[in-house]
This record gives sequence, C-alpha cells and structure tokens, in this order.
Amino acid sequence: MELTTASEQKSLLATLSPGKRTRLRRLLFEFGPGNGTLLLLPIDQGIEHGPRDFFANPASKDPEYQFRLAAEAGYSAIACQIGLAEKYYPDYAGQVPLILKVNGKTDVPPDDQALSTTNASVEDAVRLGADAIGYTMYLGSPRQGEDLHQLKTVREDCDRYGMPLVIWAYPRGEYIEQKGGRDSFYAVDYGARMAMEMGADVVKLNMPKLNPEKDLDSPAPYNEGDFSQEEAIRHCVASAGRSLVVLSGGSKADDEKVLEQTRFVMEAGGSGVIYGRNVWQREWSQAIEIVEQIKEIMLTHVARIP
Amino acid sequence: MELTTASEQKSLLATLSPGKRTRLRRLLFEFGPGNGTLLLLPIDQGIEHGPRDFFANPASKDPEYQFRLAAEAGYSAIACQIGLAEKYYPDYAGQVPLILKVNGKTDVPPDDQALSTTNASVEDAVRLGADAIGYTMYLGSPRQGEDLHQLKTVREDCDRYGMPLVIWAYPRGEYIEQKGGRDSFYAVDYGARMAMEMGADVVKLNMPKLNPEKDLDSPAPYNEGDFSQEEAIRHCVASAGRSLVVLSGGSKADDEKVLEQTRFVMEAGGSGVIYGRNVWQREWSQAIEIVEQIKEIMLTHVARIP
Amino acid sequence: MELTTASEQKSLLATLSPGKRTRLRRLLFEFGPGNGTLLLLPIDQGIEHGPRDFFANPASKDPEYQFRLAAEAGYSAIACQIGLAEKYYPDYAGQVPLILKVNGKTDVPPDDQALSTTNASVEDAVRLGADAIGYTMYLGSPRQGEDLHQLKTVREDCDRYGMPLVIWAYPRGEYIEQKGGRDSFYAVDYGARMAMEMGADVVKLNMPKLNPEKDLDSPAPYNEGDFSQEEAIRHCVASAGRSLVVLSGGSKADDEKVLEQTRFVMEAGGSGVIYGRNVWQREWSQAIEIVEQIKEIMLTHVARIP
Amino acid sequence: MELTTASEQKSLLATLSPGKRTRLRRLLFEFGPGNGTLLLLPIDQGIEHGPRDFFANPASKDPEYQFRLAAEAGYSAIACQIGLAEKYYPDYAGQVPLILKVNGKTDVPPDDQALSTTNASVEDAVRLGADAIGYTMYLGSPRQGEDLHQLKTVREDCDRYGMPLVIWAYPRGEYIEQKGGRDSFYAVDYGARMAMEMGADVVKLNMPKLNPEKDLDSPAPYNEGDFSQEEAIRHCVASAGRSLVVLSGGSKADDEKVLEQTRFVMEAGGSGVIYGRNVWQREWSQAIEIVEQIKEIMLTHVARIP
Amino acid sequence: MELTTASEQKSLLATLSPGKRTRLRRLLFEFGPGNGTLLLLPIDQGIEHGPRDFFANPASKDPEYQFRLAAEAGYSAIACQIGLAEKYYPDYAGQVPLILKVNGKTDVPPDDQALSTTNASVEDAVRLGADAIGYTMYLGSPRQGEDLHQLKTVREDCDRYGMPLVIWAYPRGEYIEQKGGRDSFYAVDYGARMAMEMGADVVKLNMPKLNPEKDLDSPAPYNEGDFSQEEAIRHCVASAGRSLVVLSGGSKADDEKVLEQTRFVMEAGGSGVIYGRNVWQREWSQAIEIVEQIKEIMLTHVARIP
Repeated sequence: MELTTASEQKSLLATLSPGKRTRLRRLLFEFGPGNGTLLLLPIDQGIEHGPRDFFANPASKDPEYQFRLAAEAGYSAIACQIGLAEKYYPDYAGQVPLILKVNGKTDVPPDDQALSTTNASVEDAVRLGADAIGYTMYLGSPRQGEDLHQLKTVREDCDRYGMPLVIWAYPRGEYIEQKGGRDSFYAVDYGARMAMEMGADVVKLNMPKLNPEKDLDSPAPYNEGDFSQEEAIRHCVASAGRSLVVLSGGSKADDEKVLEQTRFVMEAGGSGVIYGRNVWQREWSQAIEIVEQIKEIMLTHVARIP
Repeated sequence: MELTTASEQKSLLATLSPGKRTRLRRLLFEFGPGNGTLLLLPIDQGIEHGPRDFFANPASKDPEYQFRLAAEAGYSAIACQIGLAEKYYPDYAGQVPLILKVNGKTDVPPDDQALSTTNASVEDAVRLGADAIGYTMYLGSPRQGEDLHQLKTVREDCDRYGMPLVIWAYPRGEYIEQKGGRDSFYAVDYGARMAMEMGADVVKLNMPKLNPEKDLDSPAPYNEGDFSQEEAIRHCVASAGRSLVVLSGGSKADDEKVLEQTRFVMEAGGSGVIYGRNVWQREWSQAIEIVEQIKEIMLTHVARIP
Repeated sequence: MELTTASEQKSLLATLSPGKRTRLRRLLFEFGPGNGTLLLLPIDQGIEHGPRDFFANPASKDPEYQFRLAAEAGYSAIACQIGLAEKYYPDYAGQVPLILKVNGKTDVPPDDQALSTTNASVEDAVRLGADAIGYTMYLGSPRQGEDLHQLKTVREDCDRYGMPLVIWAYPRGEYIEQKGGRDSFYAVDYGARMAMEMGADVVKLNMPKLNPEKDLDSPAPYNEGDFSQEEAIRHCVASAGRSLVVLSGGSKADDEKVLEQTRFVMEAGGSGVIYGRNVWQREWSQAIEIVEQIKEIMLTHVARIP
Repeated sequence: MELTTASEQKSLLATLSPGKRTRLRRLLFEFGPGNGTLLLLPIDQGIEHGPRDFFANPASKDPEYQFRLAAEAGYSAIACQIGLAEKYYPDYAGQVPLILKVNGKTDVPPDDQALSTTNASVEDAVRLGADAIGYTMYLGSPRQGEDLHQLKTVREDCDRYGMPLVIWAYPRGEYIEQKGGRDSFYAVDYGARMAMEMGADVVKLNMPKLNPEKDLDSPAPYNEGDFSQEEAIRHCVASAGRSLVVLSGGSKADDEKVLEQTRFVMEAGGSGVIYGRNVWQREWSQAIEIVEQIKEIMLTHVARIP
Repeated sequence: MELTTASEQKSLLATLSPGKRTRLRRLLFEFGPGNGTLLLLPIDQGIEHGPRDFFANPASKDPEYQFRLAAEAGYSAIACQIGLAEKYYPDYAGQVPLILKVNGKTDVPPDDQALSTTNASVEDAVRLGADAIGYTMYLGSPRQGEDLHQLKTVREDCDRYGMPLVIWAYPRGEYIEQKGGRDSFYAVDYGARMAMEMGADVVKLNMPKLNPEKDLDSPAPYNEGDFSQEEAIRHCVASAGRSLVVLSGGSKADDEKVLEQTRFVMEAGGSGVIYGRNVWQREWSQAIEIVEQIKEIMLTHVARIP
C-alpha cells in the first residue's frame, strides 16, 4: 500500500506557534539525544500504580532518583505530576525539561469506565517553567465524552500559552476489550489518529501487539490478519500524521527487546521512546548504561526530523 | 398536499447578521460550484470511525490528501476537527473555506446514549479563519438534554462572532430505534426541523430511507406508508425551512447512485451535498472526475438560491 | 369554601419592575384582545413533537403560517424557540410580541424523568426584542432539582432585564403518574402554585381533568371526589395567586369545546388561553374565524384585570 | 452529665459581622416577642406540599393571609420562597422581617435521595430587603455531598453580604431510616451539630421523638434508651452550640401540646419556635389568639439571650 | 533494602513559597512541641461522626473545650470545619494556629463510593487567619476522579495564597476493601505517595495495620508478608518524600499504646501525630497530662527536621 510514511510528513515545527516551537525545540534539539528525537522519562507510576513499582530498586522510591537520572543520563524531558514538579523539579530547573502531566488516576478501581481527571493546569506548568503538558486520553472509554471535553480546555490553554501538548493515547474500557483489546493494532492505531485529531503535538502510544485470535474482534481491515509487527508500527506512526510519536516500553523488559523496539520506532518515523521502569528499576550505573545504548540506537536510526 | 416548497423559502442570507452573511456567501458563491450551492468535504472519519476508512485508498490516510482535494477539486468547504484544522489547514488557508467541527466522538462505545461533547470552540474557529462551525446533534438520544444545552453555547457564540452554524442532525439512541430507526423518514424529518428550531443556518441530513415494515413503528402519518422517496426528501428539505439543507452520501456508493441522489436533493430545494468517503476513497484522478460530475449535476438542478 | 378568588387578586402589574410592566402591558393591553387578557399562539410543536403535527394542514409546516396568523388574527403574542425567533420573527417585529421559549425537548425519549434543558437565554430574548420568556417546568419529575436550579438562572436574568417570565407548569414523571396523573386536579393545582412560588408572572396550565378513579391516588383532599370541573379551574387559578393564568387547549378539539373552555377560564379569573394546534391546524379563513370567536368570548367574560 | 448548657453559651451576636448582627438583631429584639427570641412563620408549604395544606382554611391559600398574619400578630419574621417574596412581601416591607428560603422541592418524588436545589440567591435576598437566608440541608442523604457543596456557596455569600444564615436541618434518606429515622434523637442531634459545623447562625430542628424500638438502630449511646424527652431537647440545643435553635411544630396540633413544646424549647436554651400550619390553618381570630399565648410562654421561659 | 529514609529528605521548607513557609513554620517551630514537629488536634468528629463522640466526656460537646485545650496544652494547631472556625476560633486567634478543613461528610451513608465535597474555601481560611488548609482525599474510591479534580482547585488556591496544604489521605471504597482494606500497608503506603503527588505539604495517615491474611489480597510485594510494623511505618513515611507525615490515633487507646505509636512515628522520620478523641475524651487534667507526655516523647525522638 502506498501509505504516506511519517518520514515524509511536513515539518511539525513549521506549523506551530512561536511559543510551542520554542519549547518543543528544547526537547528535540537542545536536550536528550537531539537531532529531532525524544527520549522521555515518566515518573507518574507513584500515582498510576502506587509505590509498589519502587521495591525492585528501593532507591527509586525517592523521586530524586528519577530527576537526577533524567538530568545526568541526558533525557529530553521528565514527565511527572504536580506534586513532584513543585517539590523536586526546582532543583533540576534548566538541567532537564519538564513535561507536567495534568491528569492521572490510581489503578485501584477497575478501568472499564476509565477517565483521568485533571489535577493540575497549564497555568501551573507555565508557572513552574515546564516545556510541555502531558494529558492521558482514554480512547473508547464509556466516559470519553467527558474526556474529550476536558481535553478541550487543556488544549485551548496550550494554544493560549504556547505550550506543546503531549497526549498519552490509551485505548481503554469495556468496548475496546470487545474489539481486540487495549494493545491491539486497531486500538493503538485509532488512538494515534484520535490524539492527532484532538490537537496533540506529540502522541505517546503503547506498542501495538498483533494477536491473530483477538484481532478477529477488531473491525476490518484489522481483523484480516495480514500485518507484520513492523507494518503495524508504521501504520500507527503514520496515523498520527504531523504529530510526533513516542512509543513506550511498559514494564521492565530485557535489554535486547528494549533496543530492538527503539530501532523499530525510529525506522517507522517515530520521534523516540518513553522509558521509565525499564530504566529506573535498574541500579544507577546500569540505568546510565542502557540509556546510552538507547540514545545511540535512536540517533543511528532517525528517519524523520520534525 | 399544498406544502410550501423549500424553493419558495425567503432568502436565508437576508435574515443573517453581517458576519454570518459574509462568511456563508463565501461557501455559497465564491468557492465550490457556486450559484448558492454547497459541496462539502468531511474529513472527520478519523475520529468518528478511526483510521479504518483510509485503507481503501492508503493515500487518504494523510490529511493532506483531503485538503488538497478540497482545494483543487473546488469544494465549497472542508469540514474537520481541531487537530487537522491546526496542523493542515494553514497550508490551504484562502484556498478552500474551513468548517470547524467543534464536537465529535469515536464509534467504540455503542450509541444508544449518544452524545458528542465539544472538543473545540467557536473562538478556535475565529482564530483559525474558519468560515463556519459544524456541530453534531443527536436527536432523540436519552442525553439530548445535555446536547441541546451544549448547543446553546455554541449557537450563542456563533451569533456573537457572526459564524454560520452547520448542524449535523443525526437521529440516535434506543428510542429512535423503537420508532422506525435512525434513517427513517420520521427521524430524518424530525431532525431537519429540530436543527432549524435550534438555530442552524445549514442542516446536514442523511438520506431518509423508506422501509414499509419499520416505518410502522413511527408515529402517524409516517406509519401510513404512502410516501415516495422524492416526497420524503422534499418534506425533509421543507422541514428545515429557511435553513439550507445538505444531504450526505454515507459510505462509498456507485457513481450512478451518487449522481442520482445529488439530483434529488437539488430538485427538492436542497442546497447541496456532503460527500467524503464517496470521493476520497477514490484514487486522485477518479476523485477529481466524480467531483466534476457532481458539480455539474448540482448546477443543472439548482431549485433554490438562498 | 371562602376561597380568595383570582379576580380579587391585587394588581400584578403594580408589583412588577418597570421593564416587566412595560413589556407585559404590551401583551395585555396593546396587542391581542386587550383589556388585560392574553391570547397566545405557541409554535413549539416542531421541537416538542416534530413535524408530524403539520400534516393536518400542510401550509402550517412553514413557520410563516403561524407568524402571519399571530400578527393578522391579532394574538397577544407568539411563543417559539430560538431558531424561529431568529429566522422568522424579524419580518413580524413590532406586529406581534414575541415570547422566546428558552428550553424544550423532543418527545422521542419517554418523559418519566422529564427535564427540559435551556437552549436559549434571556439575553437572546433581549437582543431579539422579545417581550417575555417562556420556560417549561416539569413539576414532580425525578429531575426537578435540576429543573428548579436551572429556572433560578432564567428567573434571575428576567429580574435583571425586566423580562416577564411565563412558566409552562407541566406535572410529569413516574411519581406524578402514581398520584393521579399529569392532568389530575391535584397535579395541575400543585403546578399552578409551584410556578407562582418560583417567580412566574404568567402561568401556563393544561386544563385539569377530573377522573374519580385515578383521583383516588391523589393526596387529600383531592382524592375526596367532590369537586366540579369549574371548581377545579377556579382552584388552579387561585393557586397561582397574583400570577396570571392561561390555559391551553392541547390537541385540536371541536369549536364548541374550545369556546366553552375559554369561557370557563375567563370566568375563573384566568387571563386567557393559549391555542396552537386548535387554530393553526385549520385552513387560513377558518383559523381567522375561530380566533375572532375566541377573542369575543374572552372579552365578554373577563373577570380580572391585572 | 456535666453538659455545657446552651444558656451558658457565649453571645452569638458578639461573634457575628456587623451586617449579620444588624439584621439578626431585628428578628431577635425589634420584631416578634423580642428579648432575644425568635417566632417564625413559614409559608413554604406551597412548594413543599402543594396547595393541599390550604384547604383546612381556604383563606390561607392566598399568601396575603400569612403575610398579614406575620405582620399583625407580631412574628419575628416570615420565611418564604422567591415567588412570594417578590409578589407579596413588598406590601409588608418594614412591617415584618423576611427570611428568603433559597432552596426547596416538592414532595412528589420520594425523599430517599433528598436534595433541595437552590432556586434563589443571597443577592436576591439583599435586593428584596430580606434580613436572613433560609436553607434546607438534608443530613445523611446519599446526595449530601452535593448539598454541602451547594451550601458552601450560600454560606459564603451570606458571609460576603452580612446576611444571617438559618439552616433547616432535616435528617433524610434511606440510611437515616436505617439508623432510627428522621425524627430520632440521634438524627436530630446530628443535624443540630452539622448545621452549626456548616456555619448556621440559626438552626431549625424538628422535635426529636424518642422511640425505644427504633432507637435501637441508632449508634451508641442513642440506642441505650435512657434519655427523657427533655434531655433529648437539651442535648439537641446544646449540639448547636453558639448557633441559635428554633424548633418546629410540624402539622397542626392541639393547643396544649403547642404551648408545652414551646416551653420545653425555651427552657432548654432554644431561641424560639417556628409555627406555620399550627397557626395559619386556624381562622383569623383564633390564629391571633394562639400566637399571643405562644409569645407569652416564650417570654416567660427565656433561658438564653444571645 | 537501601531505602532513602525520610530523615535524609531535603528540607521541605526550602522548597516552599514565602507564604507557605511563613505559615508552616508557625506550626513547626512557634507553637506546639516545636523543633520542627507537629502535634495536631482535630475537632471534625462533629461532622464526621455526629455528637455521639462527645458523650464519653460531656464537656467535650462544647467546642470551647477543644479550642481551650489546643491553646493551653500547647498543640501545634487545631483543625476544624468552617462553622467552628467562624464561631469559636476568634477567641483563640493568635493563641493556637488554625487548620481550616475545607471538606467533610457525615458517616450516615456507607463509604463504598466515598467523596468528601468542599464546604469552605481557601479564601475563607485566609479571611479567618488560618495557617493551613485541611483536605480529605479518598484514595481508590470509585469517585476519586471527582476528588482529585476538586483537590486541584484547593491546591491551586493554596499555591495562590501561600497556604500550606494538609491532606488527610484515606484509602476508601469497595476496591480498596478488595485489595487488603483501608488500613492495609498497601493502601496506606499508596495514600502517602498519592498525597505527595497531589501537592500535599503535610500528609495525615492512619497507622498501617499488618494483617497477614487480608494482605494476601494486596498487590506484590505487599502480599509477601515479610514486613514488620516498624518497616511499614518507615515505608509510608518515605513514600511521602519531602511532604511531612503525621499519623493519627483513631479512637481512644490506652496510654502505653499512644506513647509507643508516637515514638514509632518520630523514629521513622515522621513529623508528628494528630490526636483528637485520645485526648479530648479525657477529663481536663488527664488530657493536659497525656499531651505533656506525648510532647516529651516527640521531642526526644525527632529524626527529621524539615
């Protein structure tokens, strides 16, 4: 299929307002691997999962660990909620850009009706010197109407203040599960397009997972089973159009897989990766080492410069 | 029956404020087929259905395709959500008018309680140089109370900024299904009137479908079964009164049917058609060709000049 | 029982602010039958029932019909939603006063949880030169809490702008049905008082219907069965206190009944009637004729001058 | 038990802002029985019960009856909704203070999920020259969260405008019924404290009713059954702390009981009573007479001067 | 495990704005035990439980008791709702700092869907001279989305006015009960982190309770059963990071346990304790005495000075 590939996409930066351009350039060129790429460190697991993720590496329970890591290993940005931004970021201001996540939720109640309400504002981000906003959108949730309406205000404020908008596009809810599941190619591809339609400058996706059996529940042509993993990634990246794409790693994986995934994403025209637990659940020197390897892979396989 | 036909309707433009008149005239006379007609290109399928609609013509996955098509084939306007408007429309500003759709939803959850919440504002449209607002109203949904109240704000902002209001009047929800269904003559006719009552300047309807069996569930006189397809269209157009009517094509149909439908609409006093997938799921030269044919039919059968 | 009759009520106009007094006087004395009476033409059936009501008299589908009728037959005012007010009223501005109905709903979903949300504002009414606001309140609905709170804002805006408030007091919902039903003397009487308590200047009621069997479900003394139709009307009018009362005709009835009802209302101290379908479902000359008869009955039986 | 009795409470007036003090002093000292007492006349039955309460004394259907009674019999204040306040109070302005009740509901739907939404504002009260605000709080209702949040705004506006706040503290809802019921000592005592905690200047309570069987469902120590009626009243009054307490009579009772209740309340350190139907369901001269007796009892048994 | 202990945490005060620092220093150094500790007296039981808690010590029903106790026994602050703050705090202004609790609820409805709505504002606290805000957050409740969104506004106002934010972090709801329960180590630890993530300056926790059987329902590693009580406390304190931690006593316990708990908290790097019923359910001289003992233990075991 003669799909317009993401690497052929027109420059995103050229379409952005001066404020967005200034800030997003910092992440793409001044910090992290550079050359138009994005390597993001999320430390929102404390709200999304609770402290249980920190036991694997006790040092990681202190947010200092992630902030120092982001700054010293050379991430493009660190993404966190308001509490950490107010109490820990000031020590690293100017050393690593901040993405303020403005919504979040715990994983205590089930997520069949998922909605992540805002707990911070774009104005908070401006006040704290952040360079972007993070927003979690639950595609397909029965409460998506509230979600999109809430996102409207966040997006408008981003436009008003020239703040780049990073959308975590997560398929969720009972109806997604009936159509192949949250990680299905169908769901992730829909999420990519949806985030772009809603005004994302950067889209954060989970890696699409091909599952011949469950994919039968997805609508055509996703249920036809003739996609390779690399095609799936290429499609998802293309669905985000001019919006940049970062893919996530999820829970800790072995090094080979982390590096391979990174290469896939870059080759498909993605802008980078967002690795949290995969990195900070490692002891300090190992964390630094894997980040170096990731950065090298990223720079070697850049396919699109935004 | 001595029905006042739409072609006898008093000029719509004469009743509009200067801002609305200026903008709507662009669509009716300066772009597209002209002579008071409307040929609209919707590219909201990415949110309403997800990327699945783009596989039929892979080139269509890149929003560039639809924007270029709207401009080069000579549509009256292109209708899309905020994301595309911000990232793709700027390249075509001044080449084709923009209708900013301010609400939308995915088709993942079922639509028995359909409500399409706003994700953009009339102020966004003003800022982007749009010439009209698009709003999807779900007639008969159990949540119509929220819908109409939300539409109030959009309509008031349109009045405030002199922005024409295009209402996608879609019958939806469990109770509509019990009364003949979303495409029944009853439902579409009610939608036409409802949109006009709520302040639409232009009403977008789906083609009413006569179905003798299901129509028995509609209230009188719709359940009496003595309407022809052409009468049904004429009634729907008349129910919108001074508001202009455009009918849609839905999924891709064969050329004959597309052109016949177009003629029906124009003869009934409608102002035009809105064809998306019917056009952009075709390869470029074929898309250009069918648009030329549609425009010719439209201009040949104009019955009402607003 | 020594009930204070409505005709003994102190002047309503004397208690109103200058803005309300100026506007309401137009309806009571300058237009329509005059002498302190109200003859109202509602054209809100297009939203409340859909176009089905217009088939009886095809000419009535064009809102022009009702506006012209209101002006030429000499109604005190025409009541409609924002769409008609914006697109049809301008041609009749100054020829017949406008009551802008600011809420409404379709009859597609059942009304066991009835709530009519606002789709226009008092400011819209001011902008359009309307002389009063119409608001539908569903007494007894499970959602009445939302209703009364919504009405608060409308009433406050009416106070702010000096705009008379006409409340359509409609008993509705499952609990009303359990206590005698929406048209029971109990329900209508409660509605009359409730509208007055909520700040109505004019209350629109449906004719109370005595039904010995169903009235047993009403609370005492309504379940005691010793009321005549005329007593019931007198009670309802008295329950509205200084607020003026207009009674409605509902669906088309024969001439005798229409005129008799009109007489009952006036004799009971009501201020007039609101007849829509009963009039505009007739052919033009017949419509003009019945209005003449109604006006004559009204003026002959005026019992209270506000 | 060495309970601090209400009569030992520090002066309430000394803690109030100048606006609240000025207004509340009018009720306590300038109108009604005086000497720091409160005799209130509620005429909110028209909304809470409908007109059925007026049949016992047909003259009472006309709100004039209650307003004249409040003024001529010498009540401390009359409490009513916005409709009566706007249309009837002006004739009595300056003759009897007004408590504007800003929320209310009908008794048509069941009250297992009771919530009384606002239909008027503190600004309305200021505009109308009222001397206090009335608010109905449903303690224990499943919707109490909405209730307390709504009350926040009313209380803040009272603070802003110096308007005394009278809270009708009514235990309600399915869970109250499971714990002894709405009139249980437990429930009324909780209501008294709750109203004080929420910022009431005056708390309106219903008389607590001891019911050895149902009280077993209340939490300890209320389920221990060793309280006398007088102790219960004393506790409830003490639970309101510095907030003044008025107890209500409910439906019409015989004279002996009315006067005895009045004495109990005053002796317990309460500030007065609120008698509506007990008074205005009587013929004029009898109404005047019972009020005289009540006032005499009140002044004879004053235990606390605020 | 090489957990960063709370006592190694960087100074909280150093990260706070001047307003927050000024006010929080009063609680930490100028009042109460001092030396960076917090001894808080809560008197919110009147709303959370009703007056039943006061029967154990009748004198405690009069809020004077708790205010005098807080001032004379030398607490760091007293925490209460708006009603007490307005009517009782003025007499103690300057003698003991005030924490205004801005939300609260009764215990009448079950708390499987717990949400505590706001009944006062940060502006109220500023007006009253309070030195901190108290907010109850129900971690894991099905309504946590509303909770976090409501907290957003409170936190933003605290940032705006320089008001320290104390979050009562209470795990609640049906899903918490399914995962070990509200007092489980898992739940309390999650609550500590969550409060910090949401911007708490001080976190109020209930003592985590190890329960080998119920803990099996908690996620790993909490279900592995190899934690001591002291480890659990240390973890919870560490999870709050730079936010200070106070632990509560709950219902009245024997002196030994109260003092032992106090020592545990201080040794773990907590900043103090919040003891209400444990203290004010005692007769005056006993209350004074136990407070003296608590203060001594606190100062002897200070591990972290913020």
